[in-house]
Amino acid sequence: MVASVILPDLATQVVVPAAAVVGIAFALLQWVLVSKVKLTPERRGDGSPAALGVSGKDGASEYLIEEEEGLNEHNVFIKCAEIQNAISEGATSFLFTEYKYVGLFMSIFAVLIFLFLGSVEGFSTKSQPCHYSKDRMCKPALANAIFSTVAFVLGAVTSLISGFLGMKIATYANARTTLEARKGVGKAFITAFRSGAVMGFLLAASGLVVLYIAINLFGIYYGDDWEGLFEAITGYGLGGSSMALFGRVGGGIYTKAADVGADLVGKVERNIPEDDPRNPAVIADNVGDNVGDIAGMGSDLFGSYAESSCAALVVASISSFGINHEFTPMMYPLLISSVGIIACLITTLFATDFFEIKAVDEIEPALKKQLIISTAVMTVGIALVSWLGLPYTFTIFNFGAQKTVYSWQLFLCVAVGLWAGLIIGFVTEYYTSNAYSPVQDVADSCRTGAATNVIFGLALGYKSVIIPIFAIAFSIFLSFSLAAMYGVAVAALGMLSTIATGLAIDAYGPISDNAGGIAEMAGMSHRIRERTDALDAAGNTTAAIGKGFAIGSAALVSLALFGAFVSRAEISTVDVLTPKVFIGLLVGAMLPYWFSAMTMKSVGSAALKMVEEVRRQFNTIPGLMEGTTKPDYATCVKISTDASIKEMIPPGALVMLTPLIVGIFFGVETLSGLLAGALVSGVQIAISASNTGGAWDNAKKYIEAGASDHARTLGPKGSDCHKAAVIGDTIGDPLKDTSGPSLNILIKLMAVESLVFAPFFATHGGILFKWL
Amino acid sequence: MVASVILPDLATQVVVPAAAVVGIAFALLQWVLVSKVKLTPERRGDGSPAALGVSGKDGASEYLIEEEEGLNEHNVFIKCAEIQNAISEGATSFLFTEYKYVGLFMSIFAVLIFLFLGSVEGFSTKSQPCHYSKDRMCKPALANAIFSTVAFVLGAVTSLISGFLGMKIATYANARTTLEARKGVGKAFITAFRSGAVMGFLLAASGLVVLYIAINLFGIYYGDDWEGLFEAITGYGLGGSSMALFGRVGGGIYTKAADVGADLVGKVERNIPEDDPRNPAVIADNVGDNVGDIAGMGSDLFGSYAESSCAALVVASISSFGINHEFTPMMYPLLISSVGIIACLITTLFATDFFEIKAVDEIEPALKKQLIISTAVMTVGIALVSWLGLPYTFTIFNFGAQKTVYSWQLFLCVAVGLWAGLIIGFVTEYYTSNAYSPVQDVADSCRTGAATNVIFGLALGYKSVIIPIFAIAFSIFLSFSLAAMYGVAVAALGMLSTIATGLAIDAYGPISDNAGGIAEMAGMSHRIRERTDALDAAGNTTAAIGKGFAIGSAALVSLALFGAFVSRAEISTVDVLTPKVFIGLLVGAMLPYWFSAMTMKSVGSAALKMVEEVRRQFNTIPGLMEGTTKPDYATCVKISTDASIKEMIPPGALVMLTPLIVGIFFGVETLSGLLAGALVSGVQIAISASNTGGAWDNAKKYIEAGASDHARTLGPKGSDCHKAAVIGDTIGDPLKDTSGPSLNILIKLMAVESLVFAPFFATHGGILFKWL
Repeated sequence: MVASVILPDLATQVVVPAAAVVGIAFALLQWVLVSKVKLTPERRGDGSPAALGVSGKDGASEYLIEEEEGLNEHNVFIKCAEIQNAISEGATSFLFTEYKYVGLFMSIFAVLIFLFLGSVEGFSTKSQPCHYSKDRMCKPALANAIFSTVAFVLGAVTSLISGFLGMKIATYANARTTLEARKGVGKAFITAFRSGAVMGFLLAASGLVVLYIAINLFGIYYGDDWEGLFEAITGYGLGGSSMALFGRVGGGIYTKAADVGADLVGKVERNIPEDDPRNPAVIADNVGDNVGDIAGMGSDLFGSYAESSCAALVVASISSFGINHEFTPMMYPLLISSVGIIACLITTLFATDFFEIKAVDEIEPALKKQLIISTAVMTVGIALVSWLGLPYTFTIFNFGAQKTVYSWQLFLCVAVGLWAGLIIGFVTEYYTSNAYSPVQDVADSCRTGAATNVIFGLALGYKSVIIPIFAIAFSIFLSFSLAAMYGVAVAALGMLSTIATGLAIDAYGPISDNAGGIAEMAGMSHRIRERTDALDAAGNTTAAIGKGFAIGSAALVSLALFGAFVSRAEISTVDVLTPKVFIGLLVGAMLPYWFSAMTMKSVGSAALKMVEEVRRQFNTIPGLMEGTTKPDYATCVKISTDASIKEMIPPGALVMLTPLIVGIFFGVETLSGLLAGALVSGVQIAISASNTGGAWDNAKKYIEAGASDHARTLGPKGSDCHKAAVIGDTIGDPLKDTSGPSLNILIKLMAVESLVFAPFFATHGGILFKWL
Repeated sequence: MVASVILPDLATQVVVPAAAVVGIAFALLQWVLVSKVKLTPERRGDGSPAALGVSGKDGASEYLIEEEEGLNEHNVFIKCAEIQNAISEGATSFLFTEYKYVGLFMSIFAVLIFLFLGSVEGFSTKSQPCHYSKDRMCKPALANAIFSTVAFVLGAVTSLISGFLGMKIATYANARTTLEARKGVGKAFITAFRSGAVMGFLLAASGLVVLYIAINLFGIYYGDDWEGLFEAITGYGLGGSSMALFGRVGGGIYTKAADVGADLVGKVERNIPEDDPRNPAVIADNVGDNVGDIAGMGSDLFGSYAESSCAALVVASISSFGINHEFTPMMYPLLISSVGIIACLITTLFATDFFEIKAVDEIEPALKKQLIISTAVMTVGIALVSWLGLPYTFTIFNFGAQKTVYSWQLFLCVAVGLWAGLIIGFVTEYYTSNAYSPVQDVADSCRTGAATNVIFGLALGYKSVIIPIFAIAFSIFLSFSLAAMYGVAVAALGMLSTIATGLAIDAYGPISDNAGGIAEMAGMSHRIRERTDALDAAGNTTAAIGKGFAIGSAALVSLALFGAFVSRAEISTVDVLTPKVFIGLLVGAMLPYWFSAMTMKSVGSAALKMVEEVRRQFNTIPGLMEGTTKPDYATCVKISTDASIKEMIPPGALVMLTPLIVGIFFGVETLSGLLAGALVSGVQIAISASNTGGAWDNAKKYIEAGASDHARTLGPKGSDCHKAAVIGDTIGDPLKDTSGPSLNILIKLMAVESLVFAPFFATHGGILFKWL
């Protein structure tokens, strides 16, 4: 039955690491290009703009704006460097504190993994019959305990490094983007985008290479026991996602406490602009963009990537090529990612080299083009990998039965995930960009005040769920029907295969946001601020798109992990019409609400503390409003740090402990229901929360920019309409940057955790029902 | 196996209608007592307060406030009567318009029911083998088509009459409550509460008696074919719920468009008090309370009651006593409701006769006591009915298998539903009453503006979901484990068995709200307004409690209907791990969002129109602000009417057509998933939306009342804190009165509709998958 594969195993062993190396090299190249923007003033003989390398082809920006307005060139550089330094230091210090606490939690959890999994067969060191192929012998449960724990730590550390590096790159790029904005919007765009690309490629490549090395190293011990090998590898996904959870929640609380606190006193009470250096919370706010949106999001998408790879691998290990030890088809998920890196590399060139941005209104189309190009190129890539890397026909394990699959069917599974991602991206763009009527309607509703703004914004978020859910449902139906859970897993991989591009356009947003902050703080011209604002508005949309991808892929990944869990836990059906499953479903659907309540309340409370501190400084520090004294930035940074460290523990514990408690006390049926419930409910709240928040932010920016007749009737800054829009924006902050994006981690993490602990639950779980 | 039943069938035939008659008589008695408050000034000889019947035992209110302040007694009566008349006319006219449109829709739908169900066996008039007992002969599918259609119409008409009568009673009572408020808060409370009781008992009794008559009349044709009889009876539930859907959505849009519109211009822009007669939207606002909160809610709870009875009956018809034609145990659901009427009657006396309210802070405890007393009394009632009306042991149909149940187990099922209702009630009270810290925290967050108010309010709503979900999950687990779907159905009935009391305290809220409005419009003293405000604040909490009951019972009812549907559609399992079911689950979980987006957007748009009209009147009618000219109330009434009629169709069609489309094209498996998804997702949004809204409303009232030191630091009216609270209140309006409470109808209605159409779907459904 099993046909031969075109690509030899040796070639696979070369292609995967090679693609990773190319990705890393490309990231370094981008970094070198960004670093050419100097943060120190250059020596000039004649003072002409040409000496600064302004080529003149940029039309409107022949001269640096500062020079036109007579600002001191030297001071601008000094100030930008100084601010960048403060942001970078604040972010580094926060991340170290965060990692210290999370490290403790993760160590305890690693011990739990070892103990629980080791206890499955009483820490016996004897080989056992395999779980699926009962006639073969597999490594002992103790080995699974050890290697799962190692994989867990590996995943956590890779995630941590990804987030940290992302933050470092972003804080390296922000001031450089500001300085480039003086030369024109195109230059600034390329700097911000290249920096995003550094992060995107570094992350995609390192995720791939670490996984590849781990498989090969673990393989030395496991040998022919691929079932055991890939079961242990799932620890990698768990580690990555656990880290991501704390990163997203901690970073999300940090950034929004600072942002909301800064806005409420600065913009609303004191009527000073956003990012004004007189605002004591301004540094904390800018630090927050980097630890929340950059480091948190980096960890998050890395987690998704790691989990979808693990889900695909663990399901594949019991397919026909898994059992027959065919290396190349087994590595199909990694091959997809390898080709993805190359496809994204080509795509990036379209933004940085093949075209040039000359005006503000070209930014969004350029980013949108990135999505389309990467999807189109990648479709070819998937076809290639499916043709070369898969046997023409093979069988897949499908809940106890075997299912025959053709390679072109698997191509369809990956492709449907990829294209569903594009659809989600476009729908998200439509609902969150101020170029279209939904956001304009929300802006218009500000005429009658904040209340209608909020009502329209919530309605927009709810509505924006419809098409993405149909897209996800269609992908699931097709991939599930064609190739069971393996199909769903590779559909998730398809959606994430363009992760490098996705991350690049996603990271570009907070970098632009910071660039605007630095321009304001350094006292640069308003025209520069306008340019960075335009970059930032596009960034809000791309951030929403990035979240859309993260959520869509999380839904697919969770389902695949859920399917793998059910197989491993030896459940044949998850029947809604049994009381055990139904209560799981109901309570699972409630968990995202519980989690959101915790995170939103945390942001609210932390913001209140921030507001009090900022008010105190304005009231007690003489000369602060006049700009003659500097505020005490450090105290605000400390408030955000302390609040986020303290507040990230309860929601984190809720997510990490729920599967354990339910599995141990109620057993695998209830846990299955819980996972399904959390999945179908969480994905809706996550999408609506992040789109509502994005729409409010851009409705505000729409009014501020005043680029159309309609927008001008609502503005200008400081009008009643604008005030109503600011209220909406502030409400949206925790929705879009704290609770919303954390929810996709919630659903993924609970699923992967259940999978890792499945052997334990299957043996020792459900003690409550056993007692009754 | 089957033991004998203590209560003879003849006694059952007497007890059920007798209880209904007692309920109706009690309602009439309450009505007579309310009508003793005259709306015309009485002739007095000496002008002493005693002549008005003020007994003097009420302490603080020996004299009528108007007389102290020298207001003209005669004018007050004239004005109150005039305003009441305007409200009543507006409400009647709206309901007639609504019923005209809905009637058309319902007629078309009735034809659909007949055609679809008739086509199951090609409109054959021959008897067929029964569906469950294949060895018996049952009536033809055509009979089911005819009787289902008749039952549908009957349910719709009963629901319509319930809503209409409720509205009539409420508009009869509101001005009377205002006038009684002059004599003291206790008198006003009793008038409002008695009026609520009229509605509660009338509705509970008529729902019971119509169902009882229908069963007996249908029984003449069906004879021994109980399976067919009760299958046809489910049409009653469908009719009741369809009507309720339009009532809730139409009424909800009406009331909130007027309320939001009136507040945005009146309170926020013109700084005039709520319900000021100069506000052109004030009559529309007060009409809205009656058509939305009263008529809509009455239809809604009637629908729940009809559906839970139908769900229990249809499951029971294939149990051992159904097959053996034991009448008394078959009527167990109706016996529960009969005893419920008596239990509520006793409970009501505690509020109206055994105790007396003397101060404002006694209102909430008195209403809370109603919940506790009715639950305690009813527990005894259930025990009695279970002992007398059930065989000691019997078998229940459980998805193809038979399950043995003891009568005490069924007692536990009903009781767990009843007590879960009480827990939901208390939790709702805790989260929405301003006597406790959650609402006070929300009020406190207004210090930093509307944004934090909204963030805290949303977090509160999310959090308030946790315990109710655990309570529902526990009820489901227990009742499902003990007596399968019959257990779940009677648990729902248990929760609804105290419906008369629930409705009484629920209807009391809008009556008090209207009473306050009339006091304001009639220019009565502020001290009267304070009293009605206190009644109204308690009413916000009871409204939230009522919604909690409605949602909790809807969850249980839907599950029972869902179970009956699955049995009828011949599905053996609803396995989440099949693509057909999973996509249903995912899309089902999305429907509540789609529906909420529609209804909230509708309220927003209608409110915008209302704002424009109100602004226009203030700007163009000279002397309006000075109070020398009357505004044009009729135009505002028309705007609300037109908007709600137009806007209720799309969300109504979404709910009514989705099960049809999914069933016909995708088949019963996908439809099962859809129902489960909508159920577990909808219940969360519904609870959180109505509690968030209730909390915001009471946070505002907390600041306005200024009853504690903390509250006084936030107030007074017109302060920045208060303005932020008003914004929250306005946002909460559509959440708590339009989208939230409609969602429980969404989940029930889709389930009952699927059940009614199950024979058709099982025969002709799923054509899309049949083609592929």
